[in-house]
Amino acid sequence: MTDRIRVLVLGTGKMGSGIARLVCSKLGLELVGAFARRSERSGQDLGSVIGLDRDMDISISNDLAAVVEQAKPHVAIQATCSRLSDALEEIETLLQHRVNVISIAEEMAYPACSSITTAQELHALAVEQRVSVLGTGINPGFALDLLVIALSGVCAHVESIRATRVNDLSAYGPTVLNAQGVGLTPDAFARGLESGKVVGHLGFKESIAMISNALGWEIDHMEETREPIISRVRRITPYATVEPGQVAGCHHTAVAYREGRPVITLIHPQQVCPQIEAIETGDRIEIKGSPDLSLAGTPEIPGGMATAALAVNMIPRVLNAKPGLHSMADLPVPAAILGDARRLIAAKEDEGVD
Amino acid sequence: MTDRIRVLVLGTGKMGSGIARLVCSKLGLELVGAFARRSERSGQDLGSVIGLDRDMDISISNDLAAVVEQAKPHVAIQATCSRLSDALEEIETLLQHRVNVISIAEEMAYPACSSITTAQELHALAVEQRVSVLGTGINPGFALDLLVIALSGVCAHVESIRATRVNDLSAYGPTVLNAQGVGLTPDAFARGLESGKVVGHLGFKESIAMISNALGWEIDHMEETREPIISRVRRITPYATVEPGQVAGCHHTAVAYREGRPVITLIHPQQVCPQIEAIETGDRIEIKGSPDLSLAGTPEIPGGMATAALAVNMIPRVLNAKPGLHSMADLPVPAAILGDARRLIAAKEDEGVD
Repeated sequence: MTDRIRVLVLGTGKMGSGIARLVCSKLGLELVGAFARRSERSGQDLGSVIGLDRDMDISISNDLAAVVEQAKPHVAIQATCSRLSDALEEIETLLQHRVNVISIAEEMAYPACSSITTAQELHALAVEQRVSVLGTGINPGFALDLLVIALSGVCAHVESIRATRVNDLSAYGPTVLNAQGVGLTPDAFARGLESGKVVGHLGFKESIAMISNALGWEIDHMEETREPIISRVRRITPYATVEPGQVAGCHHTAVAYREGRPVITLIHPQQVCPQIEAIETGDRIEIKGSPDLSLAGTPEIPGGMATAALAVNMIPRVLNAKPGLHSMADLPVPAAILGDARRLIAAKEDEGVD
Repeated sequence: MTDRIRVLVLGTGKMGSGIARLVCSKLGLELVGAFARRSERSGQDLGSVIGLDRDMDISISNDLAAVVEQAKPHVAIQATCSRLSDALEEIETLLQHRVNVISIAEEMAYPACSSITTAQELHALAVEQRVSVLGTGINPGFALDLLVIALSGVCAHVESIRATRVNDLSAYGPTVLNAQGVGLTPDAFARGLESGKVVGHLGFKESIAMISNALGWEIDHMEETREPIISRVRRITPYATVEPGQVAGCHHTAVAYREGRPVITLIHPQQVCPQIEAIETGDRIEIKGSPDLSLAGTPEIPGGMATAALAVNMIPRVLNAKPGLHSMADLPVPAAILGDARRLIAAKEDEGVD
């Protein structure tokens, strides 16, 4: 591959902007277009929108099919939404134009959890068009699933898995904070759970499906709990102020059962300013088995930057993959792209494609 | 795949025996034969040799071609040696008989480090025979390379990598202990290094090549240091007694330079009874970059059991792989096989092989 890998970005919010800047910094990648849902973005130059101090000669478009036909990307990174139903139309448009897709929509990490039919249709369309589609991100996609699976690989037997991610939401804006109930009273948090305005973490189903399928465990059922994290002190971020007695975030857990026994426990308390109450953030995986294993890091792998990096770093893996729908568990491990990305693209001639 | 996956084991020492027992415990795998180099093993029943209290109706053979032709394995796991030159003949015999190969020989983790020509020949032979060959193990193959690569995958940029593995050799026998200089005087350790009897860790070259190739770093040169770990107290294992002032093991490090700057530092002090001098064993990875990352676990992932598990758990990955020579970095992440291994085998019909 001598031409640079042509990359289209969908979404010009915080995540899309971070992805676009990173694509521009990588040798062998070329940012060739940008799509945004918001109509006010249309026609703006991408450079100023993503925080560069120069024009990029890339005009943001609201018309995905048009920008694909004009920019001719090899791969598109979708950073416009979280839900499969919301992501689907854009992904299908990309696949129909033979563009490989990497999505950071949480439900795309394992779309069969949301809809087996949709997952099958995406797979069939990608195979037909001879391109690949992958959902990725730090969580779901890495911290509570891919790393767990990799660590299980050195186990002769596994009895149970427990993975914990304690993170800090202080840098996040209103959309994320509202979904965690930040700033609510405990009563309002309870009402928010009932009404669906407070959702906690999106991705447990996907992580558990990824792990259980990789290991060959049949899961009977899964239980989730969402508890408010009540602050004892005032916590202040650029986007929220939490008074003592109010909710600083959501302590969300999921437990998967097999033959009546809990085998996968995922624990993910998300809150603003955890350090103000001496709560240490971090990622931790514990496996009970032969051998027992644990692996932990503190602070937590930062969600925003790491998700943007992972999406970009998976470009060569997706271009090298067999056509179809993939999860992080069935592609080679991600690796930081530090040299020319083109060198990581395998020759396709021996794969029997014409 | 409805028939069980037929597995041949090469080697009936501690590692080969552990692998054979594990194969017998996994649904969907069938142990169909055993090869040993030692002539006194020939004709013995494998059951008693690997510590089962029953006969297995598998007669150990010294004739690899004969046992392959009789047992018709899909995959063979080689646990007979450490060096590529020593492993080569057996691997070639297996490939010539269209048997997929998983080797735990350290130099097979990245055979191009020992001989580019041999690696190319192995790849060509495997492609010609439409089977795959992989080198694996806890180290090289996982703790100081695959986990490092996976963690780099969430980084936008990486400045340098430092990975440390502090382990306990107390369970190991004379071959391993002698290679680390255990029980020698400091003078004898120095002479052992010069004569090549003391080697320290085998696998730094392979780990550094795996990491640097995955990330796209061109390495200028690599420096290794081997220092004796002098015991201040008496240390006793089933196979060695170390007096105060004698050598308890080898503190071996490797540093890889890029553009004159150290970018990969691997640290691996190996000794008997580290806990007697309050040395905590464990695995630790630290990445300086965007973001900075660290991940650590204590005690260390146990080398023997984990290598056997990893070799067996990679069976589906190797059977699913494109024909050719692979490293751990270019196959999907390992996962513990906890269900029927046959369910993990992908259908091959859409790959264009006849």
